Amino acid sequence: MSIVAVGSIALDTIKTPFGQADDVVGGSLTYFAVAASYFTDVNLVAVVGKDFNEQHMRVFEGRRIDLQGVEHARGKTFRWGGEYSYNLNSRETLFTDLNVFEQFQPSLPDSYREADIVFLGNMHPSLQLSVLDQVTSKRIVGMDSMNLWIETTPQHLRDVLKRADILKVDDAEARQLSGEYNLRKAAAAIQKMGPRMLVATRGSHGSMLFNEDDIFAVTAYPLEDEVDPTGAGDSFAGGFFGYLAQKPELDQATLRRAVIFGSVMGSFCVEDFGTRRLERLSFDEILDRYRRIKQLTHFEDI
Amino acid sequence: MSIVAVGSIALDTIKTPFGQADDVVGGSLTYFAVAASYFTDVNLVAVVGKDFNEQHMRVFEGRRIDLQGVEHARGKTFRWGGEYSYNLNSRETLFTDLNVFEQFQPSLPDSYREADIVFLGNMHPSLQLSVLDQVTSKRIVGMDSMNLWIETTPQHLRDVLKRADILKVDDAEARQLSGEYNLRKAAAAIQKMGPRMLVATRGSHGSMLFNEDDIFAVTAYPLEDEVDPTGAGDSFAGGFFGYLAQKPELDQATLRRAVIFGSVMGSFCVEDFGTRRLERLSFDEILDRYRRIKQLTHFEDI
Repeated sequence: MSIVAVGSIALDTIKTPFGQADDVVGGSLTYFAVAASYFTDVNLVAVVGKDFNEQHMRVFEGRRIDLQGVEHARGKTFRWGGEYSYNLNSRETLFTDLNVFEQFQPSLPDSYREADIVFLGNMHPSLQLSVLDQVTSKRIVGMDSMNLWIETTPQHLRDVLKRADILKVDDAEARQLSGEYNLRKAAAAIQKMGPRMLVATRGSHGSMLFNEDDIFAVTAYPLEDEVDPTGAGDSFAGGFFGYLAQKPELDQATLRRAVIFGSVMGSFCVEDFGTRRLERLSFDEILDRYRRIKQLTHFEDI
Repeated sequence: MSIVAVGSIALDTIKTPFGQADDVVGGSLTYFAVAASYFTDVNLVAVVGKDFNEQHMRVFEGRRIDLQGVEHARGKTFRWGGEYSYNLNSRETLFTDLNVFEQFQPSLPDSYREADIVFLGNMHPSLQLSVLDQVTSKRIVGMDSMNLWIETTPQHLRDVLKRADILKVDDAEARQLSGEYNLRKAAAAIQKMGPRMLVATRGSHGSMLFNEDDIFAVTAYPLEDEVDPTGAGDSFAGGFFGYLAQKPELDQATLRRAVIFGSVMGSFCVEDFGTRRLERLSFDEILDRYRRIKQLTHFEDI
């Protein structure tokens, strides 16, 4: 059981009220891959520049991560900088230098063509389609997107949505994509576009899963020390799809557990800059937080 | 088992994107009382003006609500007007005419002096203290407050907090009162001020209970049609304290159930203008929504 995941690998500069981190390995695919690798094998499709050195590669080493699909192109790696407000609830983008990511044409190694789960990270919908076209066999297509593609390439995005099983976006993106403010109505509208499931993350407020007529909601794990929210949604996706990759059946109990593992990985991500906390996790810590979320949210019948 | 509850009764003008309601009976005590009366007897301490007529009184009739402690004073009833933004997440106060509420001196009928629960609704802390002083026997002291008293009468508020068992505020108020942005840290700071429990409502994001070292969090029931959020927090308090009033022991399971009943009553409140939805509830509907919240939030062990 493995995941083929495509997305961005970047070098990030992150400023928060608690400090600053320069040139840390980020990008949506990095967070997704590190989180998912605790559950399953992850085959990466991405591009980095010549400045992406051995030190940078270490984030992927010693994990269930395959890098055959990572192209080393001439030029610089995608760079992003962001600064968070005092309560970490809003952020300003300081710079976005796409560099080698601008000309990225995902190309799958032959060994990636049969995948259990294909995860299409946030990128131009035509690249997402190109990846789908290169996969000959798959069980589940998961995808992410963002406001930029909803606004600028809506038709391409619709084409990807038609071929997706599970859309993972944040609540603001779900609202924008559907034109519905109410999240239940937004989910119903999106389910008509193709994906039979919507997983909506809600930042520090938790997440919701809409699966046909079933709705599942979980509150965010209340951290005492939040350091850096960068990548929390991507880490959520990694935990969610990573857990699902191991499971032959997508029954309700399995999907709900996957949301909790998503929530667990998202919450760990926030505890340190970049992927630092995710990198040093043990699986026991992951299970322990799963149980804590259960203890935090469960109540008895009346 | 009964509650003595003090607070405001008002005539409200409410504007939302879905319509307008004029001169509806509102005020924090009204929502609290109607919600709590589904669970227990509620004895009201409040003041209304001469313009508060028989039509207005109907909201309290045929319920487990005692009105002996409601004074009919010369002058006009407290009036409040508010207008909500398109997504109901923010509101502007159009007017606040305190009228008879400005000179309110709560006076408890003799029959109210022995109470199971005393609930001190949001008002000047010195009035909350005066009510406490008039009660000779009580099991639980619950209280609410708001930014105005946190800013203008902090010492009086501290005096009430010292004598309270359970503080019910929204998350923004908990942050302001404690000076801590993180809700866990805010709760710990508030628990040092007196109340051994904090119940923090979080609008459309749910609520949390902090009870000594135990934390319980529940997501808000995802309504498809939200009409008017006025009074949702007070309805939550009514459901929460109303349920507790029937229970001799405040064990963890009971407290968690109380939070769910609070959440149930808050969610119903939002479904129509003012108290309209709360007024026409059946207890079966309340139990059904309790079970739906359980279905919405529960997941299995790993």
